[in-house]
Amino acid sequence: MSEKVTLIMFSDDMDKALAALNLAIGASSMGMEVSIFFTFWGLNLIKKNDGPTKSRGIMRKMLNFMNRGGSKRLKLSRFHMFGLGKWMIGKLMQDIKFPSPQELMMMAHQSGVKFIACTTSMGMMGLSKEAFIPEVDSYAGVATYLANAKEGRINLFI
Amino acid sequence: MSEKVTLIMFSDDMDKALAALNLAIGASSMGMEVSIFFTFWGLNLIKKNDGPTKSRGIMRKMLNFMNRGGSKRLKLSRFHMFGLGKWMIGKLMQDIKFPSPQELMMMAHQSGVKFIACTTSMGMMGLSKEAFIPEVDSYAGVATYLANAKEGRINLFI
Amino acid sequence: MSEKVTLIMFSDDMDKALAALNLAIGASSMGMEVSIFFTFWGLNLIKKNDGPTKSRGIMRKMLNFMNRGGSKRLKLSRFHMFGLGKWMIGKLMQDIKFPSPQELMMMAHQSGVKFIACTTSMGMMGLSKEAFIPEVDSYAGVATYLANAKEGRINLFI
Repeated sequence: MSEKVTLIMFSDDMDKALAALNLAIGASSMGMEVSIFFTFWGLNLIKKNDGPTKSRGIMRKMLNFMNRGGSKRLKLSRFHMFGLGKWMIGKLMQDIKFPSPQELMMMAHQSGVKFIACTTSMGMMGLSKEAFIPEVDSYAGVATYLANAKEGRINLFI
Repeated sequence: MSEKVTLIMFSDDMDKALAALNLAIGASSMGMEVSIFFTFWGLNLIKKNDGPTKSRGIMRKMLNFMNRGGSKRLKLSRFHMFGLGKWMIGKLMQDIKFPSPQELMMMAHQSGVKFIACTTSMGMMGLSKEAFIPEVDSYAGVATYLANAKEGRINLFI
Repeated sequence: MSEKVTLIMFSDDMDKALAALNLAIGASSMGMEVSIFFTFWGLNLIKKNDGPTKSRGIMRKMLNFMNRGGSKRLKLSRFHMFGLGKWMIGKLMQDIKFPSPQELMMMAHQSGVKFIACTTSMGMMGLSKEAFIPEVDSYAGVATYLANAKEGRINLFI
């Protein structure tokens, strides 16, 4: 039986996403079974990069406008500086041939990392499955996460 | 023997508190033994909602004035917008009949989740037991947390 | 065999550093085998406190100028207030004879906590080993962290 790793991706900071995806891909390539539970702001990582995000009601429309998401729109947790810091980190990553967040998402998916979207957060934000990229493997609540994590060797909240 | 879950509640962001309490209540309802170790800003979740917070010395008084705490005063980690974002999330939660942070605290307590206040943080901030809600089960330091967590199936830092 | 604790130190917030080091020293003094994997902003905790940080290229020079690091330069995650909040927390810590972040780093090292610097983050930020304090035990990537953490009883992302 392979060892399990579970990550709760709560944040959508670009830097935390890089750390989480790097861990996930590393663990998967070492033969571990990895799942990422995207919740709250973390849902932004699995939102489609193109087109508007549909949602019901004026407040949810506002929230999803301010909180557009998509793996190419993530911001740094500091030094964002209206995009300059992000552009700089992007350049530094290119320099050492480090993949972008979008590329890491695809690499993680291809290496078998499971993407789970938190249905409670989706409900709160008025999001339906159409808002998300097709690489999402399942839509589930906290009970599914807990059932996974209690078998996990490494469980992290990011 | 039931499986243990331990959460370190370091943050007092409303969104992280919602995530932590949702996890704790979920785990408890699945028969797991859950404890939350409230430390640093996380102490704000277990401060009384009413009345001033007493503390010794001018600096601690200042700190506890700026850092009033109480589960009804938590702020979002982003989009706080002088309370507008918080009000909006509150509305969205009501819409889907999701409980407020105060209600979740009570639900967690009633479902058997143990609340532990970090005595080191209390010392630093000049807080005594009177500052806290009666639902706090115990007052302890890092050794107690570690003894719990090393038996934990799921340990998270939030 | 002693029980393992692994911490990923992603943040360089002074308050999170205090929590992490307090945990690490506590666990070590209880006979547990503790390692801290410093990554991304967390590298700032193990940067030398004195002298400029050398790095290649104008963008990395800029990044390392803005992001100077060193355990005596850590900021609070809130209430920083141009240093006032940090000074205040420092005073409150002195009051209860709580060690400073620099002192905690040395105490952790002396009590046997292993310091590991993330080589991927070092590459991205253009940092070489000379940027770091001599207390760093090893320089390694995510595979080393994962090999440690899968044997860990307590693994936290901070």
